[in-house]
Amino acid sequence: MTFKGYADPDYGAVLSPDDLPKKWYNIVPDLPEPLAPMLDSHTLKPVGPKQFERLFPKELVRQQFSKERWFDIPQEVWEAYRTLPRPTPLVRARRLEKFLGTPAKIFYKAEQFSPVGSMKPNTALAQAYYAKKQGLELAVSETGAGQWGSALAMSCARFQLKARIYMVRVSAQQKPGRKILMETYGAEVLESPSENTETGRKLLAENPNHPGSLGIAISEAIEDTLAQQEARYLLASAFNYALAHQTIMGLEAQKQFELMDLVPDMMCGCIGGGSNYSGFIYPFVREKLRGRIETEFVACEPTAVPSTTRGRFTYDYADAAEHTPLVKMYSIGHSTPNPPIHAGGLRFHGKAPSLSLLIHLGVVKSVAFPQTKVFEAAKMFAQTEGVIPAPESAHGLRYAIDEAIRCRKTGEKKVIAFNNCGHGLLDLSAYDEYNKGKLVDWEPPEIQLFEYLRK
Amino acid sequence: MTFKGYADPDYGAVLSPDDLPKKWYNIVPDLPEPLAPMLDSHTLKPVGPKQFERLFPKELVRQQFSKERWFDIPQEVWEAYRTLPRPTPLVRARRLEKFLGTPAKIFYKAEQFSPVGSMKPNTALAQAYYAKKQGLELAVSETGAGQWGSALAMSCARFQLKARIYMVRVSAQQKPGRKILMETYGAEVLESPSENTETGRKLLAENPNHPGSLGIAISEAIEDTLAQQEARYLLASAFNYALAHQTIMGLEAQKQFELMDLVPDMMCGCIGGGSNYSGFIYPFVREKLRGRIETEFVACEPTAVPSTTRGRFTYDYADAAEHTPLVKMYSIGHSTPNPPIHAGGLRFHGKAPSLSLLIHLGVVKSVAFPQTKVFEAAKMFAQTEGVIPAPESAHGLRYAIDEAIRCRKTGEKKVIAFNNCGHGLLDLSAYDEYNKGKLVDWEPPEIQLFEYLRK
Repeated sequence: MTFKGYADPDYGAVLSPDDLPKKWYNIVPDLPEPLAPMLDSHTLKPVGPKQFERLFPKELVRQQFSKERWFDIPQEVWEAYRTLPRPTPLVRARRLEKFLGTPAKIFYKAEQFSPVGSMKPNTALAQAYYAKKQGLELAVSETGAGQWGSALAMSCARFQLKARIYMVRVSAQQKPGRKILMETYGAEVLESPSENTETGRKLLAENPNHPGSLGIAISEAIEDTLAQQEARYLLASAFNYALAHQTIMGLEAQKQFELMDLVPDMMCGCIGGGSNYSGFIYPFVREKLRGRIETEFVACEPTAVPSTTRGRFTYDYADAAEHTPLVKMYSIGHSTPNPPIHAGGLRFHGKAPSLSLLIHLGVVKSVAFPQTKVFEAAKMFAQTEGVIPAPESAHGLRYAIDEAIRCRKTGEKKVIAFNNCGHGLLDLSAYDEYNKGKLVDWEPPEIQLFEYLRK
Repeated sequence: MTFKGYADPDYGAVLSPDDLPKKWYNIVPDLPEPLAPMLDSHTLKPVGPKQFERLFPKELVRQQFSKERWFDIPQEVWEAYRTLPRPTPLVRARRLEKFLGTPAKIFYKAEQFSPVGSMKPNTALAQAYYAKKQGLELAVSETGAGQWGSALAMSCARFQLKARIYMVRVSAQQKPGRKILMETYGAEVLESPSENTETGRKLLAENPNHPGSLGIAISEAIEDTLAQQEARYLLASAFNYALAHQTIMGLEAQKQFELMDLVPDMMCGCIGGGSNYSGFIYPFVREKLRGRIETEFVACEPTAVPSTTRGRFTYDYADAAEHTPLVKMYSIGHSTPNPPIHAGGLRFHGKAPSLSLLIHLGVVKSVAFPQTKVFEAAKMFAQTEGVIPAPESAHGLRYAIDEAIRCRKTGEKKVIAFNNCGHGLLDLSAYDEYNKGKLVDWEPPEIQLFEYLRK
């Protein structure tokens, strides 16, 4: 049965299941400057692949250090993608355009359809597959609000790998939904701090009701991984391989725009660790760097966690607990406190090195929004397009709307695209606060740069 | 751009957006016996269309009494369907098959992708459209757990119709998610009993903390509708037109099976009011009644609300408050209490008249399951296929699994299909109870048949 894809600029584009790309794109060899190496925090010498293999699956370490442009998607992962399902549609938001009275065309990549409601399985499935293929038995990770944890739990169930996830205690108690989701997929979820690690036991001895933090959960996950030969630590974002896996979205979007005979004038999306937005734009960034398109790229972050708009492009730890090597990236400092905004997935102090470099070089711009403006956009989208966006993805949506409003004033018929990286059905309490006028904006934090950085 | 649909018996089938059917199927003219008329409960005389027009939009009343086989889908509704998006995939559950070790092929219609997570918008969009087209201003309805209310709120936002929804107070307080969803779409949600109607005020005077019930919410919605010239009452299920609108699912499934060159040997699904399952099977029932296929049909209900397995095929009120005409259907009696099972959408005492007749005539069989067996199936599906089914749709899944297990024993390579009419992401507390071994089964209720029925 042939299927050539369906495209209509008034409607959007849908690819055939057989049009799903068979390779991921790795931007590393195409970057205008080489990535700065990660440094050992004690010796300040570059860290090589060998030092990572005790913590991460081998193939992921290989991809992390690889300068190859394309990685083959293993057949098993490709089949798993199709059941998410992928390819996802690229949808024209015509009712939103009409509401805004804009001559611009707004498209969004509909990543909200995965079973866990976000784009996270794009890399979780690959990571679980490689861990299983290596003969490992246990995937260990941490999760805050639970987006990553639930994607990982689903992916481990698929490849019959055990999963143990340290979930920040206060998140597990306040937002139990995703904890239940992980457990339903069969994962073991430990509220962190836990009795399972030395780190956790020490903290619980001091305070049996310790609320936990993402930094503590990372420490526990790493300690647990290192204590077991057959365990590896699987990480949501920021690393080159996670970004490469997420390019499945951008590669699909590229085919979809081609089918419609359109080129996006502007592409925006939210940045937490950076894998969502990078995955969406990198195939287009490649074309721009080759001089083939003129697309403008705008990364959107919360004003409460302004890594790229108020932070510095410098070396910092990737985690609050100072376990990781030093990474060159945009950061507001690994010990800067993060206000409790509802977009939990954007509460990361740093950003992916390759994306940070592209922002530093001006290839990608960045902007920041307070959460009330973000939820205003989200509700507008719900009432026009019917879809409840995740608080995270609504950051990109906010910029798309602002750009469309500018087009109303200038008369420009720009083609605007944003990545709707998830739905908000497990974030409804945040919408409730907004609906009731109780949502508050947080002041940007006082930035505490790591001492090393001040030298 | 041509698109002929994609089909692969190992994977499933996906239709092009342009393959979306343009007509709904109305089974009424094809039923083996005429439907018994609805009767006025005072005069016991048949009720005609005129008596419904004050309560329901005219076009819906016309469809309710129509003997036409096909209803044109208005262009605006057809376009709205495409954005849900429709057509939805028909997916092969290969990992579930493998887990069960069955030679059977299991397919499911993936209705969980709509923005509200269920198939309810298939009729909500049509009803909101007809109300708006008639020049009405307000849609009024009631909702228990909120599946119907959220679909209606979304649909009213789309067609710029005001929506007022009476939500059972205890549901609104215990499961706030869908209430927030409705409000985010811009609907007015009143906890019932409310101060807005005489019925509500009377009950609140007796007990200011009255928990409410679906019967009370219906009474309030009807009273409110009748008090306002420009308001109409929009109803989720059971009526012929709601079933017809839902056949969009079965019509798509028919094309999808044809593309794969397969005929389902058995089709199952859950029944609450009956619109979900009827919408899935009626196009196939037509073929069976014409002698063209041999498909077996099995409707699945909870043992706690055993309308068709322990109830009677007779006249009863369609609501607990005795506002409606008498309807000939399977019922456990409109005053029989409903145990608080988690599949809130299946807590209806009666079943759609056409489906009831088909069960009565043996064209469709029915079975009942206790909820622990249903959640066992749901969790098996989550861990193999990755998808968290709604507690309602897991009733159909349970039967599909049991049939697949029988095939393992007999060696039959049956083609099994069930309708996954929604996801369970807003029902996670039920999964939590199941995961923790706390889920209980309810005894079948003591059936209290309406006095009229005993004559």
